Amino acid sequence: MLNPQLNKHGELQHLLSIEGLPKSIVNHILDTASSFVGISDRDVKKVPLMRGKSVFNLFFENSTRTRTTFEIASKRLSADVINLNIQASSASKGESLLDTIDNLSAMHADMFVVRHAQSGAPYLIAKHLHDTKQPHVHVVNAGDGRHAHPTQGLLDMYTIRHYKKDFTNLTVAIVGDILHSRVARSDIHALTTLGVPEVRAIGPHTLLPGGLEQMGVRTFTNMEEGLKGVDVIIMLRLQNERMSGALLPSAQEYFKSYGLTPERLALAKPDAIVMHPGPMNRGVEIDSAVADGPQAVILPQVTFGIAVRMAVMSIVAGTQG
Amino acid sequence: MLNPQLNKHGELQHLLSIEGLPKSIVNHILDTASSFVGISDRDVKKVPLMRGKSVFNLFFENSTRTRTTFEIASKRLSADVINLNIQASSASKGESLLDTIDNLSAMHADMFVVRHAQSGAPYLIAKHLHDTKQPHVHVVNAGDGRHAHPTQGLLDMYTIRHYKKDFTNLTVAIVGDILHSRVARSDIHALTTLGVPEVRAIGPHTLLPGGLEQMGVRTFTNMEEGLKGVDVIIMLRLQNERMSGALLPSAQEYFKSYGLTPERLALAKPDAIVMHPGPMNRGVEIDSAVADGPQAVILPQVTFGIAVRMAVMSIVAGTQG
Amino acid sequence: MLNPQLNKHGELQHLLSIEGLPKSIVNHILDTASSFVGISDRDVKKVPLMRGKSVFNLFFENSTRTRTTFEIASKRLSADVINLNIQASSASKGESLLDTIDNLSAMHADMFVVRHAQSGAPYLIAKHLHDTKQPHVHVVNAGDGRHAHPTQGLLDMYTIRHYKKDFTNLTVAIVGDILHSRVARSDIHALTTLGVPEVRAIGPHTLLPGGLEQMGVRTFTNMEEGLKGVDVIIMLRLQNERMSGALLPSAQEYFKSYGLTPERLALAKPDAIVMHPGPMNRGVEIDSAVADGPQAVILPQVTFGIAVRMAVMSIVAGTQG
Repeated sequence: MLNPQLNKHGELQHLLSIEGLPKSIVNHILDTASSFVGISDRDVKKVPLMRGKSVFNLFFENSTRTRTTFEIASKRLSADVINLNIQASSASKGESLLDTIDNLSAMHADMFVVRHAQSGAPYLIAKHLHDTKQPHVHVVNAGDGRHAHPTQGLLDMYTIRHYKKDFTNLTVAIVGDILHSRVARSDIHALTTLGVPEVRAIGPHTLLPGGLEQMGVRTFTNMEEGLKGVDVIIMLRLQNERMSGALLPSAQEYFKSYGLTPERLALAKPDAIVMHPGPMNRGVEIDSAVADGPQAVILPQVTFGIAVRMAVMSIVAGTQG
Repeated sequence: MLNPQLNKHGELQHLLSIEGLPKSIVNHILDTASSFVGISDRDVKKVPLMRGKSVFNLFFENSTRTRTTFEIASKRLSADVINLNIQASSASKGESLLDTIDNLSAMHADMFVVRHAQSGAPYLIAKHLHDTKQPHVHVVNAGDGRHAHPTQGLLDMYTIRHYKKDFTNLTVAIVGDILHSRVARSDIHALTTLGVPEVRAIGPHTLLPGGLEQMGVRTFTNMEEGLKGVDVIIMLRLQNERMSGALLPSAQEYFKSYGLTPERLALAKPDAIVMHPGPMNRGVEIDSAVADGPQAVILPQVTFGIAVRMAVMSIVAGTQG
Repeated sequence: MLNPQLNKHGELQHLLSIEGLPKSIVNHILDTASSFVGISDRDVKKVPLMRGKSVFNLFFENSTRTRTTFEIASKRLSADVINLNIQASSASKGESLLDTIDNLSAMHADMFVVRHAQSGAPYLIAKHLHDTKQPHVHVVNAGDGRHAHPTQGLLDMYTIRHYKKDFTNLTVAIVGDILHSRVARSDIHALTTLGVPEVRAIGPHTLLPGGLEQMGVRTFTNMEEGLKGVDVIIMLRLQNERMSGALLPSAQEYFKSYGLTPERLALAKPDAIVMHPGPMNRGVEIDSAVADGPQAVILPQVTFGIAVRMAVMSIVAGTQG
């Protein structure tokens, strides 16, 4: 199992990470998503592509927002969705992750949407399904530890493509807590795959991981320098638990150095777009004047996110042409 | 935005409160509900009126009972329902109410059913949708603070109309904790709108708010006097937290003065009906002999409540003719 | 109401317990289930048998696993399912069990799937529906106290029939905490009803209830003796709360005496099957080498469980021919 996301015909059978995904598949997902954007505007926002399929939202880590987007995407594809908050269930009865998976597979699950605090959990599940010869069950990573959040990465790419058309002449800055961010990791892999020539990471020393340069990323600890001339700014959410920890002085101090204000935004290209994966901490990583301003495309990101998840789910399930 | 519930054609686009609702619209809701009462008796209890619509049950305050009635109403209208318990979600991540609304709207929500501990929260949401030019998203108030519970008020009116036919010759008594009751407020507005000539409020001084007389309500602290000759008795639930507080001596004392017993019920008209929004505190505000007796219409209220909510949702969504 | 499970035509209208169920009805359920096994393999895993019916999962005791199986079974029958976790709801507002039932019935519920920590709760509900003349509302027991877990018993029978064809020449051993197990009780009644000539109960004295001999069960405190020559081994889950209590020395000690190891399994017939209701405590009541070995049919039990629940629900609802 060299690349566990692809089957032997090179088709996507799980979405675990953007790392290692061929550019052609990324583009296929974005193209498919664009056909779904219109559906959400229709009177009857449903297509029967996954009718009768059983999708399990397996959230080992609480995230109402992400679960909701997958639940909506599933319902608009006409799938049956079962939400399982695993903390409250078998996990507390001491059942192992793989026993839980085996049990749900035995109920003829078609897809697991997995959120887990531990990096690699979706891989472990995909590997187990492979080892136990269950190729008809599919895994979509909805965020694992600090590792990856591939549907967020893909919806970010969809948004950039929508506003900027061509990736091959862009400068993109990612700002904030790169160290702990699975979104940043997924975005960097996606941007590189799609041929973005300059990716920048901006943040305090303590929140910039090692190895960024090897991934082709330019790092900046001075935000003003980093923002100069960029086409796209991806702000990251500052996790509450970091705000008063050893890595950062305080939320106010953080805003002073790395909050996106109108003044700082003015250093980017005039038509630069501002993105954020949500939920925002207004006044911490982003000023409300920017968040609600004309360059913000934060709400379109959410809209495109539903279409991208519908695309991923239907492609992975093999119900897409 | 003079009356935010109505659009410029005078059609209902949100249901926020019965206050300010024209009588014609109240009657239209009741008439529409009556067409839905039969559906729940059919073998297949569904109509396709809201197929493909996304309804979000946004419960910022826990209420399984009310949420369930809206969930059933949505499913019988063939809508897709997503239940969000907001305490456990973004609210805890510090996201503001309006950011949450913007996000869900961006997922192409069609309707928010909102329960909130703070009076006015559904108004705030409706105003925000108006200000951000999203007229296709609708709000139904499922209870806000002490302010209003309009679908309860409407189902109470449906029940009274069902048993009494004509509102214009009725005496209606509301008994209990009027001060803290959004149900009482909604009922008083509805009864007045529909032309009930005499509305009475019965309860201890400490639980009767000021200003009732200005609303045309007669107040009584003596229950026997207040019940004399009435056609309809609406009992209110005594909230547990009041029972041993400063406002009331004890649950037993309350029952002695304001519990509805068969003896007290005998003071009303012989064909008087007894209503209660549920859940009942048997032995506190109502005697079991009355709750289970022939004059109680408490369970029909529940049945009618589903039809009334189906009516409100389909009218507000504009899928009703 | 001699047998509250059957209507006056002798048809199943509730499933409360396997005790007292005629053999013909048990066989009818198993035959119906076998027609559903294939559906879960199809592309569209749905039949319209319960379209428009409202099924309430009333879980007064938390059990994500069992609730999930009923939720899937309901959705594959095209019913509308409403999950109610009753601890968090009206129960906490002091509403009685029967008031809750009356309310949900008034919403035109078609079926209650009931899990309750108290033995007899589903009977109480069925009796109340009978007394209040609501024959169109059906009850399925999803586990009540130590009393019964009839759908687990039926899926165990389905599994045995699948692998062993004929019940009338089998020796079946049930191993573990018989005293506290509703699964054991349901299995014993089912095995007896279907004509199994020898049922054995194996466990420490402290976990073997009195009265087993009167039910025709042979008891063994020595596991090696009890397993000799059996065709079927049903392992029970050891509840965590027993593991360090007065009834048992420790989990390790328990495994030493009653854990199912390959060596002990070798004492049974060579083609003996191993069953477990899940979730398993690996290394406590069962060795992983057995749980994952060729004689284990634990995952097929789960698969058959969905089909058996679909059969029970559609038969009880009267939508099955």
